[in-house]
Amino acid sequence: MGRSIVATTFEDDRQRARQRLPRQLFEFIDGGSFGEETLAANRNDFARVHLRQRVLMDVGNAVLDTEIFGERFALPLGLSPVGLAGLMRRRGEAQAVRAATAAGVPFVLSTVSLCGIEEVAAAAARPFWFQLYFLRDRDYVAKMIGRAQQAGCTALVMTVDVPVNSPRHRDAQTGMGGVPSALARAKVVADFSRRWPWLRDVAVGGRPHIFGNLAAAIPDARGLADFRSFTRANWDNAIGWKDVAWVRDQWDGPLVIKGILDPQDAAAAVAAGANGIVVSNHGGRQLDGVASSISMLPAIANAVGGRAEIFLDGGVRNAIDVLRARALGAKACFVGRPWVLALAADGEAGVARMIERFRIEMISALGLMGLNDVADVGAEALAHVPP
Amino acid sequence: MGRSIVATTFEDDRQRARQRLPRQLFEFIDGGSFGEETLAANRNDFARVHLRQRVLMDVGNAVLDTEIFGERFALPLGLSPVGLAGLMRRRGEAQAVRAATAAGVPFVLSTVSLCGIEEVAAAAARPFWFQLYFLRDRDYVAKMIGRAQQAGCTALVMTVDVPVNSPRHRDAQTGMGGVPSALARAKVVADFSRRWPWLRDVAVGGRPHIFGNLAAAIPDARGLADFRSFTRANWDNAIGWKDVAWVRDQWDGPLVIKGILDPQDAAAAVAAGANGIVVSNHGGRQLDGVASSISMLPAIANAVGGRAEIFLDGGVRNAIDVLRARALGAKACFVGRPWVLALAADGEAGVARMIERFRIEMISALGLMGLNDVADVGAEALAHVPP
Amino acid sequence: MGRSIVATTFEDDRQRARQRLPRQLFEFIDGGSFGEETLAANRNDFARVHLRQRVLMDVGNAVLDTEIFGERFALPLGLSPVGLAGLMRRRGEAQAVRAATAAGVPFVLSTVSLCGIEEVAAAAARPFWFQLYFLRDRDYVAKMIGRAQQAGCTALVMTVDVPVNSPRHRDAQTGMGGVPSALARAKVVADFSRRWPWLRDVAVGGRPHIFGNLAAAIPDARGLADFRSFTRANWDNAIGWKDVAWVRDQWDGPLVIKGILDPQDAAAAVAAGANGIVVSNHGGRQLDGVASSISMLPAIANAVGGRAEIFLDGGVRNAIDVLRARALGAKACFVGRPWVLALAADGEAGVARMIERFRIEMISALGLMGLNDVADVGAEALAHVPP
Amino acid sequence: MGRSIVATTFEDDRQRARQRLPRQLFEFIDGGSFGEETLAANRNDFARVHLRQRVLMDVGNAVLDTEIFGERFALPLGLSPVGLAGLMRRRGEAQAVRAATAAGVPFVLSTVSLCGIEEVAAAAARPFWFQLYFLRDRDYVAKMIGRAQQAGCTALVMTVDVPVNSPRHRDAQTGMGGVPSALARAKVVADFSRRWPWLRDVAVGGRPHIFGNLAAAIPDARGLADFRSFTRANWDNAIGWKDVAWVRDQWDGPLVIKGILDPQDAAAAVAAGANGIVVSNHGGRQLDGVASSISMLPAIANAVGGRAEIFLDGGVRNAIDVLRARALGAKACFVGRPWVLALAADGEAGVARMIERFRIEMISALGLMGLNDVADVGAEALAHVPP
Ligand SMILES: Cc1cc2nc3c(=O)[nH]c(=O)nc-3n(C[C@H](O)[C@H](O)[C@H](O)COP(=O)(O)O)c2cc1C
Ligand SMILES: Cc1cc2nc3c(=O)[nH]c(=O)nc-3n(C[C@H](O)[C@H](O)[C@H](O)COP(=O)(O)O)c2cc1C
Ligand SMILES: Cc1cc2nc3c(=O)[nH]c(=O)nc-3n(C[C@H](O)[C@H](O)[C@H](O)COP(=O)(O)O)c2cc1C
Ligand SMILES: Cc1cc2nc3c(=O)[nH]c(=O)nc-3n(C[C@H](O)[C@H](O)[C@H](O)COP(=O)(O)O)c2cc1C
Repeated sequence: MGRSIVATTFEDDRQRARQRLPRQLFEFIDGGSFGEETLAANRNDFARVHLRQRVLMDVGNAVLDTEIFGERFALPLGLSPVGLAGLMRRRGEAQAVRAATAAGVPFVLSTVSLCGIEEVAAAAARPFWFQLYFLRDRDYVAKMIGRAQQAGCTALVMTVDVPVNSPRHRDAQTGMGGVPSALARAKVVADFSRRWPWLRDVAVGGRPHIFGNLAAAIPDARGLADFRSFTRANWDNAIGWKDVAWVRDQWDGPLVIKGILDPQDAAAAVAAGANGIVVSNHGGRQLDGVASSISMLPAIANAVGGRAEIFLDGGVRNAIDVLRARALGAKACFVGRPWVLALAADGEAGVARMIERFRIEMISALGLMGLNDVADVGAEALAHVPP
Repeated sequence: MGRSIVATTFEDDRQRARQRLPRQLFEFIDGGSFGEETLAANRNDFARVHLRQRVLMDVGNAVLDTEIFGERFALPLGLSPVGLAGLMRRRGEAQAVRAATAAGVPFVLSTVSLCGIEEVAAAAARPFWFQLYFLRDRDYVAKMIGRAQQAGCTALVMTVDVPVNSPRHRDAQTGMGGVPSALARAKVVADFSRRWPWLRDVAVGGRPHIFGNLAAAIPDARGLADFRSFTRANWDNAIGWKDVAWVRDQWDGPLVIKGILDPQDAAAAVAAGANGIVVSNHGGRQLDGVASSISMLPAIANAVGGRAEIFLDGGVRNAIDVLRARALGAKACFVGRPWVLALAADGEAGVARMIERFRIEMISALGLMGLNDVADVGAEALAHVPP
Repeated sequence: MGRSIVATTFEDDRQRARQRLPRQLFEFIDGGSFGEETLAANRNDFARVHLRQRVLMDVGNAVLDTEIFGERFALPLGLSPVGLAGLMRRRGEAQAVRAATAAGVPFVLSTVSLCGIEEVAAAAARPFWFQLYFLRDRDYVAKMIGRAQQAGCTALVMTVDVPVNSPRHRDAQTGMGGVPSALARAKVVADFSRRWPWLRDVAVGGRPHIFGNLAAAIPDARGLADFRSFTRANWDNAIGWKDVAWVRDQWDGPLVIKGILDPQDAAAAVAAGANGIVVSNHGGRQLDGVASSISMLPAIANAVGGRAEIFLDGGVRNAIDVLRARALGAKACFVGRPWVLALAADGEAGVARMIERFRIEMISALGLMGLNDVADVGAEALAHVPP
Repeated sequence: MGRSIVATTFEDDRQRARQRLPRQLFEFIDGGSFGEETLAANRNDFARVHLRQRVLMDVGNAVLDTEIFGERFALPLGLSPVGLAGLMRRRGEAQAVRAATAAGVPFVLSTVSLCGIEEVAAAAARPFWFQLYFLRDRDYVAKMIGRAQQAGCTALVMTVDVPVNSPRHRDAQTGMGGVPSALARAKVVADFSRRWPWLRDVAVGGRPHIFGNLAAAIPDARGLADFRSFTRANWDNAIGWKDVAWVRDQWDGPLVIKGILDPQDAAAAVAAGANGIVVSNHGGRQLDGVASSISMLPAIANAVGGRAEIFLDGGVRNAIDVLRARALGAKACFVGRPWVLALAADGEAGVARMIERFRIEMISALGLMGLNDVADVGAEALAHVPP
């Protein structure tokens, strides 16, 4: 009993977002790549990890504070970088960063956000992190890193699991992914035109529709399509460990490599000077048929051996999942779809409510595990259940 | 062939309850916490335990009598404590205790029942058990224990898996859990107003709507809401093994610790002087992501090593489940939702019929296992099936 | 390519039977006991057994003949005893025995059939088997055995997994199992009255509605209800291995014990002089929560060690299943629901077609396994597939 | 990001084909044999094979070229032989071979195609392969081999998993398999008559409806039915390893044995002089209850030990599946239903688009696996995931 809890679930936010967003945008968020097998595994494999219920441990003063790179956060949860989030709500990234920084959790701004670094910095109540995609033009990359430094970003997250594009069949069907047929385009227009609240909020009121971080690179861009062509043309497929070294030189704060799913790569990331890694398969949006993040975590934690911070994303849907990942070796979890769907559903308030749900759930779960401090969640928090 | 069997299933009662109860109450009973994974596992994991069919053993005189703490019961089945049961039918706990004691099975009265200990005692045909929740006010707790002793309760069941509240998302949605929005409240009112039989039986005819065992603590309460605020405010999160020792001192009858899911806690409970434990995860209503009760039973039985009685609840739906648990080391099983849904469906008669179903099923199953006495159900009653 | 195959599946017959039969009768056939877990497992567990595809073995002359107890049958398939089959079609057992004996497969007549031994013998083209249930009145049992001997039955099948009744919740709901309420009875009457073809064929044209084998025991019976009361009253729960010895003395042909699911019981049956056993859990209609027949077969075959014939029933739905069971140690399989549903659907022709389907399927499967003789299907016909 | 991908999935093509084809033809393609268990396993078992995501490997120049029997193909994917494909679209095999050869992938022409070898050769942009079924008349077989040689076929694929027919219950129901009842025939006619685009394209415009490769054997044939009777009558069930030797003598190009699912048979094929084998269970259309192709691949690769090329078909639905098979030892994969459903959906353009989808998917997947050349996909491309 004790305090009453009002909360909603991931699925509630998802349904609300589905109603509000044009279908093209909803499917873009919701979908995965190829046959979407890894997308499903990311979610399902959490069920195999069993926490221990411990009793009579004198709980009730849950401490969730987590120190990451010398900074204290309110709970071991962060917001993964999500491109185009600004299309889901008016100036979406600014709304989300407000919610995240107010709640004291790390927000990672995507390279391909609508709001640029400076706009997000202006909205943020405390520093955020910047996520870097690699373009062929190293000068421009260096400039972005400089802007992040300038804006006071406290960590640089270098995403490495998108050297090449992946087929997202839902996007092909909705016309999101490429050049739709005339008929498909007509359908899309019809669908968009039915979404009044979104049209008013974003299409009309949410301008400019540019990639804020890339605006300087294409000053003559006339719409989102130009930005997408630009990134396509300037994407660097040949990204390698040498580029990590280069970034390491440009940036003297904490460097996180995002998109590690293999123990060998995890060890290489540490060797290359990464201060942290995100165990991730890009939420089942890049290579399909790979194992879920949670199932690879133990072997990766073993390979890292404490030499860098380990984060995890992919399929995290509530505080139980976060605690599972902690018990298997992660310092914190990040969520992608949960925050962007909450944003689509209810804007800044939605994101705030989602974070608050994780917080309240974690206080509860921690107490029921017989613990008072999330820092104490380790291997001994797992039950060994005969199959 | 032999005697014909008229019976209904758990699912029948569930559907009948769903029709009769306001949705808020039905979901409160039916739901679990967080993502409801443990709720599902409690049920599904029974299917992995295979009984042995034995033949030509000269059966037909099934003995189901089970001695627990020196008292003989008609079968190794009892009714778990369920809070607010009195809201499901007029003076619900009194109806249920009548059915249970008439049938000769243990009934455990919840601290947060509508009928108080004395009202239940008056309805009971023989002694029942009392379940204790801990409040900060130890004097009041001591007084409740005294009332239980006074009422002739033959065992005290101390529930330890609720040091803190857990998020029940269904309750949040139905407005059961907290402060609903105005709209949600309107919906709830509309829903209640359609449930005529329940309104007449409980809302109008089932007064007073108080927590009978806590009435003395808040003499000026004006409704259930006041009781819920009171328990919230006075809940003791810091409950520890020292409190078990304190209770052990207050109560000189059999003491049962309910809510043990870990071998280490089971051993500690024995060390603290418990005479029995209930292997339980509160029916999937507290910590989610923990293993099912049945899957943890063997390791716990091993840790207890015969030094205390072992009971189990969570997902028990028919006599086959009870026999499975017996074969894995439990003395008896308890059921929560099965009795309260049967109560909601048909009152005292429903509870009686549910117990009778378990009894008839157990007679049948026992004979088909080649046994005449439920006391003989042990490890050798299990089949070892290659995976 | 080669010969074209016209066939229908088990599911087709099931749907046709569902349309034609009064619901009470359909559910009686289709259902299982308790939670129907074993009913499902009987079917699902076959999928775990993998045959080997072998090629270029010069096949095409499939020999399916199988010798059982010195008699040659057309294929290793038989019809399990099914009580009340005579209610599904006019003089149902007579129709079925005609189809079975014409096709050259063993037919086992249930004790509780509508057609008596003599009526079935008159319809049969060759000998059939008789299935014995035990009544307290040993003289009457001896007389039935004598009648079977008289009628030329070539094997006696003693069913041992029904010492006590089991709860069949579907029957309780449809009013089949016992004393339905007035309302339930009205519903049943309404349902029956809609089934014109069945009413004409069976209710009106299929008289007398008696248990043909028990008629002599209750000469003054006035309907099926009297027979059911009689069997209930005279059922022998205390059946034991001594009774097998007694039957062994009465009957000097091959004796088969039906309803063995445990290696220990299988060994005991051999020791008691059984010439064969049927690995069976009564089609998931008696003890629930036990393993499927097919999963217990290897351990039982091992315990029998070639000292008796091994048959299997439960979940066998096509020739692939028969070959799986052969590869795991069974001499032949029997089917219950497949034949009685085919009978309900299309009478004698339906049963003939079902057997023919198994025959054609088996010719095909045998060839694709690289074999010419079903007698060669053994352990080496199984693939070992990594999990 | 990078290049945008427009693609459709297997399921899209399947739905389009379902709409366009007469039901009889769609079910013929879509269905399997017996209980269709292997059909399902072929698909599901791919999910157990996990690729490794590798990062920062300097990718982006994907080489998919694959040399098979001295010929270079554009990617390690081919089109399995599919009988009657010419019924799905006007001169279907000619359309498909055009798409395949233009895209640079092997096309295998079935013996029982509508277009004969010569017609297909005329349409092809480069050599194709010919699949041989065995007829009793060896002279005719020798003549077909001669025609294939004449037409410049670069490999001969001898299918060995159809010594006898298998029961396809869907075909029996749709009237495809044999002699339908008058009623069934009426239904079929009604269904056909609703499929205008197909009627115009194939029934009217796609003549002659003959088995092009068998026309010379039955010059007086008056329709497809005559061809089917002919193959039925002349099928050779007694095909054995001696026949492989005979074919080996007739044909001096690469010889592939298709329909190997057992390590022992694989070794025998190598011993008999095969240059390649197709691990296959005929797409779940012949022996049911056998393991999926992908699950048998490792043991077969082991038995072959590099002495012959290994191909696989059955359930391959996207490039991820191809890469999984490569990692487990296959040189290339073939697809049956994917191309014939794409053909039915959109003719030559559909087949081209399907191949293009695999190509684009493979470029993407290869990059995300950290590789630049499909030839480097081997055992180390697989992740070892704890269960
Ligand atoms: C719509 C969408 C856009 C994304 N864009 C980016 C991005 O720009 N940069 C990046 O590093 N990851 C991106 N990701 C991946 C997320 O950072 C994260 O790894 C993933 O969403 C985690 O899985 P989850 O959605 O199941 O929580 C994106 C994910 C989604 C769903
Ligand atoms: C509606 C409801 C109320 C409950 N209230 C209490 C309670 O007051 N005290 C307690 O110890 N357990 C309580 N429980 C838990 C039950 O005692 C029991 O552990 C659980 O219901 C067993 O699982 P089952 O419902 O699957 O049988 C409650 C359970 C339900 C469903
Ligand atoms: C409607 C029905 C009635 C049955 N009656 C008898 C019976 O009288 N005697 C007996 O030994 N078994 C009886 N059985 C069990 C069958 O003999 C057989 O064991 C079972 O049906 C096999 O499973 P299957 O239905 O999945 O093939 C009956 C089964 C059914 C479905
Ligand atoms: C409609 C259909 C017709 C087929 N006809 C032939 C054939 O004539 N010769 C042959 O060797 N295989 C034939 N096959 C089997 C395919 O070559 C291939 O083994 C199978 O389709 C692979 O499985 P997939 O459909 O899941 O890709 C046929 C398959 C289908 C679906």
